[in-house]
Amino acid sequence: MITIIVPENHPEAVSVPVNDRGLAYGDGLFETILVRDGEPQLLQAHCRRMLDGARRLGIPACEADLVKAVDRARAQASEVPGYQVLKLVLTRGSGGRGYRPPPSPEPRLILSLMAAPPATPDSGVGTVISDIPLTVNPVFAGIKSLNRLEQVMASRAMPEDCYEALMPGDQGDLREGTRTALLYLWEGQWRTPPREQVAVRSVMLAHIERGLAREGVKITEAPLFPEQCQRPEFGGLVLVNSIVGAVPVQTLDGRELPRPGQLATITSLAKQPEEFR
Amino acid sequence: MITIIVPENHPEAVSVPVNDRGLAYGDGLFETILVRDGEPQLLQAHCRRMLDGARRLGIPACEADLVKAVDRARAQASEVPGYQVLKLVLTRGSGGRGYRPPPSPEPRLILSLMAAPPATPDSGVGTVISDIPLTVNPVFAGIKSLNRLEQVMASRAMPEDCYEALMPGDQGDLREGTRTALLYLWEGQWRTPPREQVAVRSVMLAHIERGLAREGVKITEAPLFPEQCQRPEFGGLVLVNSIVGAVPVQTLDGRELPRPGQLATITSLAKQPEEFR
Repeated sequence: MITIIVPENHPEAVSVPVNDRGLAYGDGLFETILVRDGEPQLLQAHCRRMLDGARRLGIPACEADLVKAVDRARAQASEVPGYQVLKLVLTRGSGGRGYRPPPSPEPRLILSLMAAPPATPDSGVGTVISDIPLTVNPVFAGIKSLNRLEQVMASRAMPEDCYEALMPGDQGDLREGTRTALLYLWEGQWRTPPREQVAVRSVMLAHIERGLAREGVKITEAPLFPEQCQRPEFGGLVLVNSIVGAVPVQTLDGRELPRPGQLATITSLAKQPEEFR
Repeated sequence: MITIIVPENHPEAVSVPVNDRGLAYGDGLFETILVRDGEPQLLQAHCRRMLDGARRLGIPACEADLVKAVDRARAQASEVPGYQVLKLVLTRGSGGRGYRPPPSPEPRLILSLMAAPPATPDSGVGTVISDIPLTVNPVFAGIKSLNRLEQVMASRAMPEDCYEALMPGDQGDLREGTRTALLYLWEGQWRTPPREQVAVRSVMLAHIERGLAREGVKITEAPLFPEQCQRPEFGGLVLVNSIVGAVPVQTLDGRELPRPGQLATITSLAKQPEEFR
């Protein structure tokens, strides 16, 4: 494993060879981890998702390698109080014959620290339904791979004042945001779109689920069609990810959505990632 | 546009910043072009496909930029007789907020020359049907983007003595190889799988189609199911791409296929790319 630690806020200073397979084919994985006062949050869950992805793609990587690299980045992060974002990129490295990887690849792990995004307003955020459908290859479902062109193009098409684009499946059901998982209230119960149909398995959603389970509350899986959002059974929509936590949706394609009634429970769980690890 | 020319056979000597969007998200395109005695073959068609992809993805690039860069690589290529491969990678460059690209990206164009692959045997090649389904987002159909994890994994799963893996659609129909387009004979007529269902629009297939059209022969679009290959109407399967030209398939999952009767016409067209440009 070749490990590269990028100096904070100087990503242009560090580079990878042009024959890296991450660049050539998106042959790799990534994670973005919230760092609070120098401590990476939900680190174990992020490492597990990356290692699960690596196993499924056949990229040789082990937990010890990741932890060692994160420790080096942590030393850098600890000098900065408050919030930062730690990004891990794991590629299959260089080599191979075209698409075909080398039999014993030497992966490349790149760590970089970045400023955290600005906080979202308490009133919630505006969203749109993307024109770009989400296609999920069942072989790669849940893997946070470097093949993210759909998310790039959905983000690019968003109006400037919009926070997130929700990506529809082939039936028009809303599956996930470009960078967030969906959690919604239906008849007072928390639901999320079926997990085998989303591109990325959300670390934060799993964390919230574990937290709710301690209170005996279950999240069920059920598709969400846009027209459901206007029905009386619908109680509101929340976007979740590791960096922003839980953010209520105020509008969808310009129409007001109800503010989720049990939002405080979700946001409080999202704000305390380590306590529930 | 930032242009990077990689010294021949030294890809590790040149690098791109870790925040390049091609590495981060597969946010870019590529082309592989056959070079014969220093001359890139079907250059115009390759540039057109890349520029069409760039337009659809919103990556600012113009033909003059590509031609100027290729001219620089050509100067290097001209020192080598025989066949080489010229690879062009065009990324959206660095920057943006996460998936969302910057409003005015500065793309990065990377050119590298590589040795051509060994010639294929006249008797044809062995192929398998991949376990990995091909998912084609209709918004990106035909674009040769850097999101190629499906092709990587299908190549990786191939037996060592196998030349190509044929990727099935969700109905099990054979759509394309990992790096080749499919052309087959049915009742003595040339057919190819429907073009809106394949991931990459083939430059060589279009070239062969133009050549056949001059002789009044048409290629029709129709899906190919594996069971059809055992039927008497089936007359053989040919793999085509810009680098290898046209290669007959000898076996599919270990079963012998008939040798295409009109193969000579196809291989002769494929061997003379420039004459039919």
